Amino acid sequence: MSTFHVELKKIVDDSYEIEIGYGLEEKLVEDLKSGLVGKLHKFAVITDSIVKDLHGERIFHMLQEAGYQADLFVFAEGEKQKSRRTKEELEDAMLAKGYRRDCCVIAVGGGVVTDLAGFVAGTFGRGVPFINYATTLLAAADASVGGKTAVDTPLATNLIGLFNQPEKVYIDIAAWKTLPERQVKSGLAETIKHACMADREFFDYLENHMEDILALDRKACEHIAEKNCQVKYQVVMKDERESGLREVLNLGHTVGRAIETVSDYRLLHGEAVAIGLAAQTGLARRLGYMTEEEQNRVTALLEKAGLPVKIPEYIDRETLVRKLYTDKKVRDGRLRFVIQKGIGGIVEFEPGVFATPIEEGLAREIIMEM
Amino acid sequence: MSTFHVELKKIVDDSYEIEIGYGLEEKLVEDLKSGLVGKLHKFAVITDSIVKDLHGERIFHMLQEAGYQADLFVFAEGEKQKSRRTKEELEDAMLAKGYRRDCCVIAVGGGVVTDLAGFVAGTFGRGVPFINYATTLLAAADASVGGKTAVDTPLATNLIGLFNQPEKVYIDIAAWKTLPERQVKSGLAETIKHACMADREFFDYLENHMEDILALDRKACEHIAEKNCQVKYQVVMKDERESGLREVLNLGHTVGRAIETVSDYRLLHGEAVAIGLAAQTGLARRLGYMTEEEQNRVTALLEKAGLPVKIPEYIDRETLVRKLYTDKKVRDGRLRFVIQKGIGGIVEFEPGVFATPIEEGLAREIIMEM
Repeated sequence: MSTFHVELKKIVDDSYEIEIGYGLEEKLVEDLKSGLVGKLHKFAVITDSIVKDLHGERIFHMLQEAGYQADLFVFAEGEKQKSRRTKEELEDAMLAKGYRRDCCVIAVGGGVVTDLAGFVAGTFGRGVPFINYATTLLAAADASVGGKTAVDTPLATNLIGLFNQPEKVYIDIAAWKTLPERQVKSGLAETIKHACMADREFFDYLENHMEDILALDRKACEHIAEKNCQVKYQVVMKDERESGLREVLNLGHTVGRAIETVSDYRLLHGEAVAIGLAAQTGLARRLGYMTEEEQNRVTALLEKAGLPVKIPEYIDRETLVRKLYTDKKVRDGRLRFVIQKGIGGIVEFEPGVFATPIEEGLAREIIMEM
Repeated sequence: MSTFHVELKKIVDDSYEIEIGYGLEEKLVEDLKSGLVGKLHKFAVITDSIVKDLHGERIFHMLQEAGYQADLFVFAEGEKQKSRRTKEELEDAMLAKGYRRDCCVIAVGGGVVTDLAGFVAGTFGRGVPFINYATTLLAAADASVGGKTAVDTPLATNLIGLFNQPEKVYIDIAAWKTLPERQVKSGLAETIKHACMADREFFDYLENHMEDILALDRKACEHIAEKNCQVKYQVVMKDERESGLREVLNLGHTVGRAIETVSDYRLLHGEAVAIGLAAQTGLARRLGYMTEEEQNRVTALLEKAGLPVKIPEYIDRETLVRKLYTDKKVRDGRLRFVIQKGIGGIVEFEPGVFATPIEEGLAREIIMEM
């Protein structure tokens, strides 16, 4: 018997820039010319069937005009497409067009596109670089910091994926104008979550500026894009692998994700998260971490943003309770929740522990009341 | 417009041990008890339908007896199973059994099992730890060092995957006795490749000890297992991401992988690589990097190991030439080959460049001759 030691200790630098602005297509091409991804000149632009017409084709043509080899890979829009099948189809399309390891993926779109394209890039040729061009508020809040990429499976959302950092993120606020109103509102749920868990002042700002935000006032939008990055960055920097602190980003997502799946995606992600945020305030109240007034402020802000705070009639409550067990925070078969503390805080149950086991009975009670 | 800097520089330590020995099941369980994967106590044992009876079930039962929660996930044996579909089935089976992020994957088997299970582990819950229990010579040579995991697709082999380092590798030489003779011989191809490219003395050893090796003499087997680790380690350490030096491990694989696919897996991986090794000696001769005598030594050693050195009759040569373009070393649409220099060396075309563009005409000529 003999042992062989493989020494693989190294410094990894995954740092990158997030550019927040109004119409950033030209900046993207400039950055590529300045060597953002080295000498690579082959770009797989991945987008969905809606964003294609709005932004994807434009970026694709600009790349071609700049002398780059580029192809547009389009999949049908919708959360249901965030699947292993779509990933496979994109891979096969790229392989058929001769893409190998000397390419870069550019994701143009919302959270579904950036989650999926980032995962495609992470396993294509065992990893090629990728760039996120985020066109929605949700992608700005959710996909810009953290490096989380994933697809959904019939049994669980976001459980098959990778931590994979982009080369750069562009948050194009001008693109928000092309979003349906329902999408804008849905996108605000993650923004409100960030305020709930980490920033009381930002929560006040949202209360006072919701009209400006819903009217897509440029200054207000830039402010919330920056705040979203800041809050996520503070959390993610301290815990890239989501072992402890990073779980706080899961606030509202235990119930949220379960409802999203049980609704069969009739609810948008943000709408489901809004209901989940409301649900956890019920737990927070019950456990003594939040006053009734604070709970009302949270639900009022969600409603001001045009988001639902009640579980729709058509959702079977018992199915929902069972679905909670597919949550990735489940440990040893027990449900675990992240709980808000007042406005702008999170309960730390033990040093470094931000999720707490909740009895199924209590979870059911909260769900039945909503 | 504003920019937000995400600082993500960190030290990553992926170091691990390779244990080479005779019957290592008990050592595996001991290591787990000593905290090899921390407090994790939920193990997904992934194996194929042949290795299951030989080793998989034994390890599974030993884990259960040791008080761990374990499940056996078995897929049909064969290179064709190294697919996205099998990966998906394993994931769904794990999810259905309640596996989430708090688990560890143990791959028990040959190269197909370790490649596939390592990839499953790498994207399950965005990455859970995994352990390789290698039961074949090929896995010992190929999967023990380097962290390469992947699946094949209809358009290319090993192009969808990850660099993912195991927690530990066990090379169980006792398990080689359970291999069909054809598998043992096939496994020797990567061993011979290592000698060809990096170690003249080891090449001499293989010439002189091939009978012992084929008889699975314990001492000879331990020696080649160690040598395989050493050679791969020296190459991989210097270039984990396969940008330059690591491409030398691709010696014989440009033609090898293409034949493997075109044969529709009638040829085992090692058999295909043996033919690929013979093919590149033709190129090496033609380009002046190898004498006729050295070329003959390589083909003689391959034949001594019972490996093929000619392209089978049933392979259509033109289909094979076209297939070469799916190789991952292809750059800007041009074929690139790694070329052997004498015995125990590799041609360095420019500093840090170990693969050279080869005209299609020359590649075709070599193929037509074989």
